Amino acid sequence: MRTSKYLLSTLKETPNDAEVVSHQLMLRAGMIRKLASGLYTWLPTGLRVLRKVETIIRQEIDNAGAIETLMPVVQPFELWEETGRSEKMGPELLRFTDRHTRPFVLSPTAEEVITALVRNEVSSYKQLPLNLYQIQTKFRDERRPRFGVMRSREFSMMDAYSFDIDKEGLQKSYDAMHDAYCKAFDRMGLDYRPVLADSGAIGGSGSQEFHVLAESGEDLIAFSTESDYAANIEKAEAVALAAELAAPTQEMTLVDTPNAKTIAELVEQFELPIEKTVKTLFVKASDEVDADIIALIIRGDHELNEVKAENLKEVASPLEMASEEEIRALVGAGPGSLGPVGLKLPFIVDRTVAVTSDFSAGANVDGKHYFGINWGRDVQLGQVEDLRNVVEGDPSPCGKGTIMLKRGIEVGHIFQLGTNYSEKMNCGVLGADGKNVILEMGCYGIGVTRVVAAAIEQNHDKYGIIWPDAIAPFQVAIVPMNMHKSERVQEAAEKLYAELTAAGIEVLFDDRKERPGVMFSDMELLGVPHTIVIGDRSMDEGNFEYKNRRTGDKTPVAMADIVEHIKSQMS
Amino acid sequence: MRTSKYLLSTLKETPNDAEVVSHQLMLRAGMIRKLASGLYTWLPTGLRVLRKVETIIRQEIDNAGAIETLMPVVQPFELWEETGRSEKMGPELLRFTDRHTRPFVLSPTAEEVITALVRNEVSSYKQLPLNLYQIQTKFRDERRPRFGVMRSREFSMMDAYSFDIDKEGLQKSYDAMHDAYCKAFDRMGLDYRPVLADSGAIGGSGSQEFHVLAESGEDLIAFSTESDYAANIEKAEAVALAAELAAPTQEMTLVDTPNAKTIAELVEQFELPIEKTVKTLFVKASDEVDADIIALIIRGDHELNEVKAENLKEVASPLEMASEEEIRALVGAGPGSLGPVGLKLPFIVDRTVAVTSDFSAGANVDGKHYFGINWGRDVQLGQVEDLRNVVEGDPSPCGKGTIMLKRGIEVGHIFQLGTNYSEKMNCGVLGADGKNVILEMGCYGIGVTRVVAAAIEQNHDKYGIIWPDAIAPFQVAIVPMNMHKSERVQEAAEKLYAELTAAGIEVLFDDRKERPGVMFSDMELLGVPHTIVIGDRSMDEGNFEYKNRRTGDKTPVAMADIVEHIKSQMS
Repeated sequence: MRTSKYLLSTLKETPNDAEVVSHQLMLRAGMIRKLASGLYTWLPTGLRVLRKVETIIRQEIDNAGAIETLMPVVQPFELWEETGRSEKMGPELLRFTDRHTRPFVLSPTAEEVITALVRNEVSSYKQLPLNLYQIQTKFRDERRPRFGVMRSREFSMMDAYSFDIDKEGLQKSYDAMHDAYCKAFDRMGLDYRPVLADSGAIGGSGSQEFHVLAESGEDLIAFSTESDYAANIEKAEAVALAAELAAPTQEMTLVDTPNAKTIAELVEQFELPIEKTVKTLFVKASDEVDADIIALIIRGDHELNEVKAENLKEVASPLEMASEEEIRALVGAGPGSLGPVGLKLPFIVDRTVAVTSDFSAGANVDGKHYFGINWGRDVQLGQVEDLRNVVEGDPSPCGKGTIMLKRGIEVGHIFQLGTNYSEKMNCGVLGADGKNVILEMGCYGIGVTRVVAAAIEQNHDKYGIIWPDAIAPFQVAIVPMNMHKSERVQEAAEKLYAELTAAGIEVLFDDRKERPGVMFSDMELLGVPHTIVIGDRSMDEGNFEYKNRRTGDKTPVAMADIVEHIKSQMS
Repeated sequence: MRTSKYLLSTLKETPNDAEVVSHQLMLRAGMIRKLASGLYTWLPTGLRVLRKVETIIRQEIDNAGAIETLMPVVQPFELWEETGRSEKMGPELLRFTDRHTRPFVLSPTAEEVITALVRNEVSSYKQLPLNLYQIQTKFRDERRPRFGVMRSREFSMMDAYSFDIDKEGLQKSYDAMHDAYCKAFDRMGLDYRPVLADSGAIGGSGSQEFHVLAESGEDLIAFSTESDYAANIEKAEAVALAAELAAPTQEMTLVDTPNAKTIAELVEQFELPIEKTVKTLFVKASDEVDADIIALIIRGDHELNEVKAENLKEVASPLEMASEEEIRALVGAGPGSLGPVGLKLPFIVDRTVAVTSDFSAGANVDGKHYFGINWGRDVQLGQVEDLRNVVEGDPSPCGKGTIMLKRGIEVGHIFQLGTNYSEKMNCGVLGADGKNVILEMGCYGIGVTRVVAAAIEQNHDKYGIIWPDAIAPFQVAIVPMNMHKSERVQEAAEKLYAELTAAGIEVLFDDRKERPGVMFSDMELLGVPHTIVIGDRSMDEGNFEYKNRRTGDKTPVAMADIVEHIKSQMS
């Protein structure tokens, strides 16, 4: 491609409304343009990358034995009523009526459509296993779309759905997709991790997310220093930080703490070790519990894991904290003075708190705390659960090493749905024994457009994007210096362009009448992995200059060897 | 691909609600399934064809110098107000509001979005010419979706938009797209024609449609028997059927015709030559005319061309016929007795009627006609226009040969828009002289999904589809007879499958435990161009059997030669 016949659309300035690096660079490199909030047009450079990501995903998903289909973007609303998801999705599910006032939605995902298809098309266990996928436009009416295509409303997603006769089959389909994802992200040259994920409200027996590691990631991932263990912090199991509860060494005393409304104040004013303090949080209880509010007790230096809390059958979902008024009405004290001793409410204790002796907590009286509390002696322990986020240094739940945390961007998810949808939609087949069997389903998604943004978050410097070869919009840039004045440079550039193109290499030939500086900075901004600079000075010595975008290295290469050199540099 | 691992989904019976052959065969061959009215899921076999059509189009449009982009399916409504098309499109433009009650539409086309993009991204004539395209989902809320993907609501379209500094540039861009379309349809192996089309209300200086010829086509195309002339009947110029007006040979007489309310009755009862009769049609006049109704006069055996009528500045658009009440109120007679003599209304005469002497027409009195009317002597001629449809045998307007008519399915359209959109949206650049120039635009569409249906309308027989090689879902089918009983057959089939696949040929290997008859009819229904039958009997003679889907020929081919034979058969 010649820049003179291309829509380069690079920008010198960083647009004001772009907060994250990938959004800034995608705008500056002429990859996308905003059409409206959360709606982006993919310009030629962006689309070239998007198509490469799409192609790699398609090939690996095909190799895993899945078969491609294409479902409409517009789906009948009634299918969403069949599974009850019409309500669950809330306003993210964009609804509208057609000219005959029939209700439809813009597809955010396609479990309903595919399950309805399979229940019609597949009738025998002999037709299984079956894994159908599509790469199609999706729409989620996000309340606050942001970060460019990272959280846009319209986006491209690969969504696959597997159907198996039993759980064993589902596990095989799931494992095959896991491997396909790994191969695809490997080929894209991304630093990513499959991590255990919460399977939350949907249930199902297993779920993993695929995260591209990047400091700007919205998710925290817990890794073991000594094993393959990796889990989203939402899911990462927090173990008890002591083997067993030590015997009391202190008496319980009631202490006036008028100026200690937070753990930090308590610790500071009374010189308490923070590991010997606890926080008591009041949340709405579920119908399982004979009370409106239930208390959750975690150590003073720990954070409540809201997903773990929400998954407890005793806690209402979605999680809702009690208001100060509700707390006062119940115990007569504010949220800064709560604790288990004398509490007239059901409570659940975090694993680590359960093995903590001689601890301090609020006395359920404003301005007063108990110090030296011990389970059993001062208050009954009761239900113990994993309630907190892991922190760095925690023993890894796998039993090997300790936890370290990194940030990640979720680009994929694989999920064992089980019979959740197939049961509601009566999707079954005749089994080998002639009886109807409800199918075991898995669902699998990759945010195709998001992968592009995540790749940039992970691969950039102050000059612009640094594409991995496999997903670069162009593999090689030819930058001729003063081509319009030097016939020799022009001839060499044209010849090289023809040669590289004939070798199947995608070349961006910068044939604009621009200063070399402008051309260099555009190619760096675009992130083309390999640049060949053609100039009179180096040609006098029989060379072109090769520049590697990632390492920044510049090497003179003999003119005759340049094509081979480029090939050897391409990974 | 092995059928055992594929979603074949063929149907024996023709579904009731499918009227046209392509719709029937796409359902029966497992290419599509209906999700809701005008919404179809593409099953694996259908998608394979769709992707091939898409790829051929993409390659040829790329070769024409256009650059691919991707615009959102969801577009802000306000852009459609900028060009006034929000009204013009009527209820086909599906509108909805997002969660913040901002108005949006589902894209039926993208002139507004692309023009808004180019006005921001392109500032100098040096960046031109520019042709941007996309292959993207479109939506038109058809009042009555039908014929499967031929007239669905959601469909895939290639839409391109060219931007040039002047009309000469536009003509070049237009010609390049014309050639790209021809190359694409040639490669697909379709019998198609580019034909002149009406550019109607949008204006612009040129427009051609691309039609796949098929008896089931909704459009009539006029061809010359002796030149390349081809035009949609809407557009085809109808010439006068005589060189000049002959002198009168009859007196004008008023005749009682109480039982002749139609031309057919008049001709039959009075033994008149139909070429000596005329029809007078009353239609709503435009504001250009000092009357509410205007009369259009065509020969008794001709049909009014509504598009030509509508394009006249004297006629209201859209065309509306006067009601019988309006006619009676104006002339005191019914629609069966109208004519130019004594008519107190403006009228326009078709070219052929203008050179007809001694003709009959209604007398504007119920039950009476004038016979032997002659222009000038009995009534003044006035305005003459081309008002009628051409008919077979007419002299071709190109001057060579006569007209013949064929049916076609419109699959593409190319259009010189001129400054229609660019002016309204203020899309200009700095010209060489530093002054702002409003850009000359062209727009170009191919109905990608419709091409698939049109190809089937043109290529089928009673057994199913007959794909051209280039767009077949699979190029070769391997049908082993009783493979599950004969180890030799199985080995040969597996070996051949591996060899053909390694040669880059797309093979459907029917490894199901089915009777040969079932396998043959499925492969015929699917339309796989080349089938290799492997059976013990022919193997005894050292042969496989080769079957050509289009010719029906069956040939024994030596086992060792089969791969070469297949390659030689593939076009």
